[in-house]
Amino acid sequence: MANKWVYKFTEGRASMRNLLGGKGCNLAEMTYMGMPIPQGFTITTEACTAYYDNGKGLPQEVLDQIDENIAWLEEINGKKFGDPNDPLLVSVRSGARASMPGMMDTILNLGLNDIAVEGFAKKTNNERFAYDSYRRFIQMYSDVVMEVSKSLFEKEIDDVKAKKGITYDVEMDVDDLKELVRRFKGIYKNALGEDFPQEAKKQLIGAVLAVFRSWDNPRAIVYRRMNDIPGSWGTAVNVQTMVFGNKGETSGTGVAFTRNPSTGAKGIFGEYLLNAQGEDVVAGVRTPQPISTLENAMPAVYKQFMELATKLENHFHDMQDMEFTIEEGKLYFLQTRDGKRTAPAAIKIACDLVDEGQIDEQTAVKRIDAKSLDQLLHPSFDAEALKAGQVIGTALPASPGAAAGKVVFDADEAKAQGIGGAGERVILVRLETSPEDIEGMHAAQGILTVRGGMTSHAAVVARGMGTCCVSGCGDIVIDEEAKVFTLGGETFHEGDYISLDGTTGKIYKGDIATKEAEIGGDFGRVMAWADKYRKLKVRTNADTPADAAKARELGAEGIGLCRTEHMFFAEDRIAAFREMICSDTVEEREKALEKIEPYQQGDFEKLYEAMEGNPVTIRFLDPPLHEFVPNTEEEIKKLADTQGKSVQQIKDIIAGLKEFNPMMGHRGLRLAITYPEIARMQTTAVIRAAIKVAKAHPDWNLVPEIMIPLSCDEKELAFVRNIVVETADKEIAAAGADLKYEVGTMIEIPRAALTADKIANQAEFFCFGTNDLTQMTYGFSRDDAGKFLDSYYSNKIFESDPFAKLDQVGVGKLMEMAVDLGKKSRPQLHAGICGEHGGDPSSIEFCHRIGLDYVSCSPFRVPIARLAAAQAALKD
Amino acid sequence: MANKWVYKFTEGRASMRNLLGGKGCNLAEMTYMGMPIPQGFTITTEACTAYYDNGKGLPQEVLDQIDENIAWLEEINGKKFGDPNDPLLVSVRSGARASMPGMMDTILNLGLNDIAVEGFAKKTNNERFAYDSYRRFIQMYSDVVMEVSKSLFEKEIDDVKAKKGITYDVEMDVDDLKELVRRFKGIYKNALGEDFPQEAKKQLIGAVLAVFRSWDNPRAIVYRRMNDIPGSWGTAVNVQTMVFGNKGETSGTGVAFTRNPSTGAKGIFGEYLLNAQGEDVVAGVRTPQPISTLENAMPAVYKQFMELATKLENHFHDMQDMEFTIEEGKLYFLQTRDGKRTAPAAIKIACDLVDEGQIDEQTAVKRIDAKSLDQLLHPSFDAEALKAGQVIGTALPASPGAAAGKVVFDADEAKAQGIGGAGERVILVRLETSPEDIEGMHAAQGILTVRGGMTSHAAVVARGMGTCCVSGCGDIVIDEEAKVFTLGGETFHEGDYISLDGTTGKIYKGDIATKEAEIGGDFGRVMAWADKYRKLKVRTNADTPADAAKARELGAEGIGLCRTEHMFFAEDRIAAFREMICSDTVEEREKALEKIEPYQQGDFEKLYEAMEGNPVTIRFLDPPLHEFVPNTEEEIKKLADTQGKSVQQIKDIIAGLKEFNPMMGHRGLRLAITYPEIARMQTTAVIRAAIKVAKAHPDWNLVPEIMIPLSCDEKELAFVRNIVVETADKEIAAAGADLKYEVGTMIEIPRAALTADKIANQAEFFCFGTNDLTQMTYGFSRDDAGKFLDSYYSNKIFESDPFAKLDQVGVGKLMEMAVDLGKKSRPQLHAGICGEHGGDPSSIEFCHRIGLDYVSCSPFRVPIARLAAAQAALKD
Repeated sequence: MANKWVYKFTEGRASMRNLLGGKGCNLAEMTYMGMPIPQGFTITTEACTAYYDNGKGLPQEVLDQIDENIAWLEEINGKKFGDPNDPLLVSVRSGARASMPGMMDTILNLGLNDIAVEGFAKKTNNERFAYDSYRRFIQMYSDVVMEVSKSLFEKEIDDVKAKKGITYDVEMDVDDLKELVRRFKGIYKNALGEDFPQEAKKQLIGAVLAVFRSWDNPRAIVYRRMNDIPGSWGTAVNVQTMVFGNKGETSGTGVAFTRNPSTGAKGIFGEYLLNAQGEDVVAGVRTPQPISTLENAMPAVYKQFMELATKLENHFHDMQDMEFTIEEGKLYFLQTRDGKRTAPAAIKIACDLVDEGQIDEQTAVKRIDAKSLDQLLHPSFDAEALKAGQVIGTALPASPGAAAGKVVFDADEAKAQGIGGAGERVILVRLETSPEDIEGMHAAQGILTVRGGMTSHAAVVARGMGTCCVSGCGDIVIDEEAKVFTLGGETFHEGDYISLDGTTGKIYKGDIATKEAEIGGDFGRVMAWADKYRKLKVRTNADTPADAAKARELGAEGIGLCRTEHMFFAEDRIAAFREMICSDTVEEREKALEKIEPYQQGDFEKLYEAMEGNPVTIRFLDPPLHEFVPNTEEEIKKLADTQGKSVQQIKDIIAGLKEFNPMMGHRGLRLAITYPEIARMQTTAVIRAAIKVAKAHPDWNLVPEIMIPLSCDEKELAFVRNIVVETADKEIAAAGADLKYEVGTMIEIPRAALTADKIANQAEFFCFGTNDLTQMTYGFSRDDAGKFLDSYYSNKIFESDPFAKLDQVGVGKLMEMAVDLGKKSRPQLHAGICGEHGGDPSSIEFCHRIGLDYVSCSPFRVPIARLAAAQAALKD
Repeated sequence: MANKWVYKFTEGRASMRNLLGGKGCNLAEMTYMGMPIPQGFTITTEACTAYYDNGKGLPQEVLDQIDENIAWLEEINGKKFGDPNDPLLVSVRSGARASMPGMMDTILNLGLNDIAVEGFAKKTNNERFAYDSYRRFIQMYSDVVMEVSKSLFEKEIDDVKAKKGITYDVEMDVDDLKELVRRFKGIYKNALGEDFPQEAKKQLIGAVLAVFRSWDNPRAIVYRRMNDIPGSWGTAVNVQTMVFGNKGETSGTGVAFTRNPSTGAKGIFGEYLLNAQGEDVVAGVRTPQPISTLENAMPAVYKQFMELATKLENHFHDMQDMEFTIEEGKLYFLQTRDGKRTAPAAIKIACDLVDEGQIDEQTAVKRIDAKSLDQLLHPSFDAEALKAGQVIGTALPASPGAAAGKVVFDADEAKAQGIGGAGERVILVRLETSPEDIEGMHAAQGILTVRGGMTSHAAVVARGMGTCCVSGCGDIVIDEEAKVFTLGGETFHEGDYISLDGTTGKIYKGDIATKEAEIGGDFGRVMAWADKYRKLKVRTNADTPADAAKARELGAEGIGLCRTEHMFFAEDRIAAFREMICSDTVEEREKALEKIEPYQQGDFEKLYEAMEGNPVTIRFLDPPLHEFVPNTEEEIKKLADTQGKSVQQIKDIIAGLKEFNPMMGHRGLRLAITYPEIARMQTTAVIRAAIKVAKAHPDWNLVPEIMIPLSCDEKELAFVRNIVVETADKEIAAAGADLKYEVGTMIEIPRAALTADKIANQAEFFCFGTNDLTQMTYGFSRDDAGKFLDSYYSNKIFESDPFAKLDQVGVGKLMEMAVDLGKKSRPQLHAGICGEHGGDPSSIEFCHRIGLDYVSCSPFRVPIARLAAAQAALKD
């Protein structure tokens, strides 16, 4: 039996979305509901896949079934395709499973040719209308199907109008339009070397192929990558009988939502134009009317529209985005779909629908795009102010929110001028950031870097802080010394204003007004529902008491990752730490570390306090020592004096720390193997802090978790664990306290996952550091991969960034293996994730599936994780 | 029932080596054979393990069983331990499963004390002998057991002799020796705060503990690591009744081999000293006599010795290394073991034993240490000349052989002065080497680097060339600009002579004479036997026709890895390659690549010719582009002129190529994704060369193998494979040829192994690049890990270098997984290894076990691999 490649609208239902695409299945559903729909048919997404499998050609079966369905359309409309006297005209639209910008635009009026246009004119008794339809068709077909530049056509329109001395398209008469048709066909022939196709079927097949081709255009690929849509889905094509909104003042066309897509407020929201077709509504030539005015213009149509719109929402149980056309007083729906909405609207609509009894809590939880919550928690640009904004570049949307301020080029300057300093709004612009920029980053409104990907230092730290960041803007030419950069043809000096949108990655010239986030009560309701259904705990990655408090406020149930090294960069501590690095003996190192211990202890006390008895995981020192060494001659001199060494000796020490591949160098627990005294100091600080806080809060069950980073071998981990246990037990005994603590490890090296049964002998918990694990599993340096991953996306090799969305096939296989092996040797083992993926919904779903206990993410992603965890649990 | 921790010699057999150690089991076997053996007992290796498990204390059971056995020894000797009148004296010796230098020295005369020495004097009627024995015992015990410095004792001996005006120890009389005993006890008390132990049992336990402790001294740990001996084996302790070779002119002591350990020549080879004990033979105070002179001195003893020595060799079927003592005309054997031998001797002895019918071919193959073959294939120092050599430093033995020459500091200088230039012998001394040093490395006798481990660039390339290399000598302070380095307190300028031993890692001052390797006919016999039994094929890693020819001569059955990038560094090619790097368009890049194509094709033709129809695997470009860019201002200027760009533009391009972690950066097939034209050019060259050579040799079945490096994903590999297949098929069709070819991939990224079922869809073969795979699996940069791995060894975390000996637990797990998954989706998949591990015997055994088809190693390791592969097969 032949495959069925084409479905009439009468043959489908809403449930057939995967096969018919969103537009197609809803047209079918509306037909089923008895709505007024111009009939047509849908060529399936499977036909699209077949087209690609077939070396980009349509199988004969598909062609045959299109023919059959055209014949059916001819029959029910009583018109013939290509008929010189009364031609059947159709529209052709793309329609994938998920709504996708970047796909092929609509083609209207398909079926017209030099002869049929005359018949059409006679039949409609409107020659101007017929020729206007024809010239629009040639224009759309040439542009959309044959990729002939739009501007060539616009130039001719301008020329015809200029010659006549008229301003608006509507002022053109039949002769003008005939002239345009002549000229447009000339452009077509000139560009493509052949005449504009006169045969309706040829036009149709051309349009269908163009839709399928557009599935793979670069914009579509980028969009799919950003939105986790697999390339294998394909798009459907909808062929629909034309109805005309441009037949005079009893005709019109419009778009409407059943609720306000920006605010979520209930009530029809939309606009329409009389005597207009398709793109006229959005093209901005005439100003569309608000939908309410239709009540006066055509009361019956208005009433019918309102009833049917409500019927649609009640049927689909969600806010609908509808297109409609009125042809000579008769209303047609051309499309309906669940309306896109802002995050605040999504929250409000979900709550309202629950209150209206349309959906239940679970559905409300499932329906909100977890990622979109980011919008709720950060400042955004004032919509009015943004309209005047001049985009000078676009790079990676590394940390969401909007920011505007004066450009500064180094962290010290940011500190001096920014928050906590002079109080100015500043944007820190850097080639790349490093740990010693932290204070400057804190003082800035936003951060812009030339190098580095979504998980570069700047991106990770900024997300942690909730600070807007745009990273990896390779188009910038920067001279940090001279304090100047150029981008998009503009030059910026220190003090010039720029604005950043960390949600879109856009960079603007000038100072664009921003507004603070507003979190309403509905947000809290949705979060409470989410908490009710999720199984995963949600912790936060926080290094400072402020971050911890923010995360707690956003619902974090503990700290999953405290990166202790960030605590070493304050001025008084870094000095002691550098002394340690430059020491020659264990004793000297211990002396230097003793100076740091009280600071660390104090930090930890504050974190415990902020977390109110919830678990706090402290990761021991991770980065290589060369990240801590001084860079300037002045600092080096100072260190040399402190250490009683020559400047050259200090420089030799610094040079000796240089590494070829620092990511795979002397870092993580490797430092504790070489310098056990560092681990001893950190253990002392963790335990003393816990004893003190536990004493102050006897009702809290404080069990500090010490996390050893970067282990790859049981014996290696045992060595460090022994140091920790020995030190901790001594401290606890000395204090006469009764404190429990746990020692665990990051699983971030493939070998740790491969040998997790052994590793678990030395670890009470695992925490997946999926940033590093992804790096090592792919052999991708996250700081360098940005340069070549673009080619992977454009060649459709990768559809998403493995650093942003967990690679479940490879990295995930290691994680599953690690959980299984680990629990085999230690059934009580608890496991979490604290890489960047801990805040990514699809990755959270995977974590839920493989049985992790918690995810940990930056404070501002905590609500996302709570919602995503609930969605994962509800999927089961 | 109690464990048995102690075995009498009468209770053991040779088969109990793991339990009794080598020395103990052979003493037992000799006792079983009825040889004249002073009786005693062995404390087992399990007791050693128990000692460590017990927190470094002997379990009571062990102590009890020692007591029982001492009682037995007292009984059979008719003497009491510690008896004031006739004390039982014993020796205490370590004895692990494998012979291990660095373990505790022997303690003789244990059981003497202030009173027993008097009884001993009376009983032996030799007061001088008794006190000499006692002072020796105190000295040995203090030094070996209690770690009191030897020099303190030697100072006292010198002082006593000086006061008396005598030169030799033997000139000291009883009073002198009594005085020494008094002084030695003083040293002991002074150093340890307590009297020298007078109780025999306390002495014994002290000595036993010292043996167990010595299992873990740093020298022993290093030795174990170098020789793949696990720390869990432990050592046994042998306690044996003393016999005395120093009782006068009818007594003596000696060591002998049943065959010459240097040459393998048949015939007893050894020496002895009359009236001497223990270390006197090797101490060099008196010159020992050759064993043949014993025939005249004591004909009966000589006759008995010769008979028993032959009996031993016939019993053990191997060359024996024996210790013996003659006490007042009676011969005792104290030890026998399979004698250590040089590689040439091992070959000759194995062949002779086969010819004598003592062993079969398989045994001969199994018995030769595969690693030692290295010695046969490279120059070595002249033994006489080496005696005067002054060691100035020691670093990693990166590539075996000996070399001497004038120091040069850069590759160009090496080229100018060295082989192919002025013809001088030069040693290239560098901070580190990079690909553009290749020609200079070829021109040098030896290479010395400051940085880099056993698998650094210098090490890998040098081994490939068969050039001596010592790497990672961190003690060197070098100024490459000023052309000077210091090491071991000596300063060397360009032109000064140094000598390197790449087999030991030693660096010598001056010009030490070397001699060429001599490979005899026996070597060929052993290799032929090995080839008969092995199942693994052995290929070579070769980039040049010369390397390929050398490898073929050494038995390579194909090329497993040709690194094409090494072909890009010749002057005319690098210019074109740099043009490619600096091109702005595909067309420009293609133009530059076209210039390189004929060179590559020519190289490949020569490789095919050298391999005579055997498989040749060509790996496509692997290193990141920044390895190819010019470094000097002059070169940059030249490139700028060629490219019609400014110097700044070229510098910007170079800066843009910089990477944070180049090992995980834009390299391998990632280059082919971004620049498909590189893969096209290389495919063209491979295929054209193959077509040409196949035409010239119609009898060869030439099937070129194209290997894509660094894949991690099926789609990624498919993308490059498609380019290769398209290009190759076009070339083959254009030539009207009938050429088969294969496309495969390196498995060197964990994700490739994890998804090998998918990867195999796009690969006809896998080749494990275990250098990179080890790096990624451990997260160790091989260029940086040297710095911290020392702590891993000294803390007993790692017992071997994972870059030298394959990690079977982690990396091996990935390899097994990859083979299994790969064969599941492509049963005909063939697989090999071409990392450094391809030449390491234990790794080769693993490759055999997991079912690889071949190993590929540097040319000079081919014989090692052939032998190791045979040994692995024979182990089955």
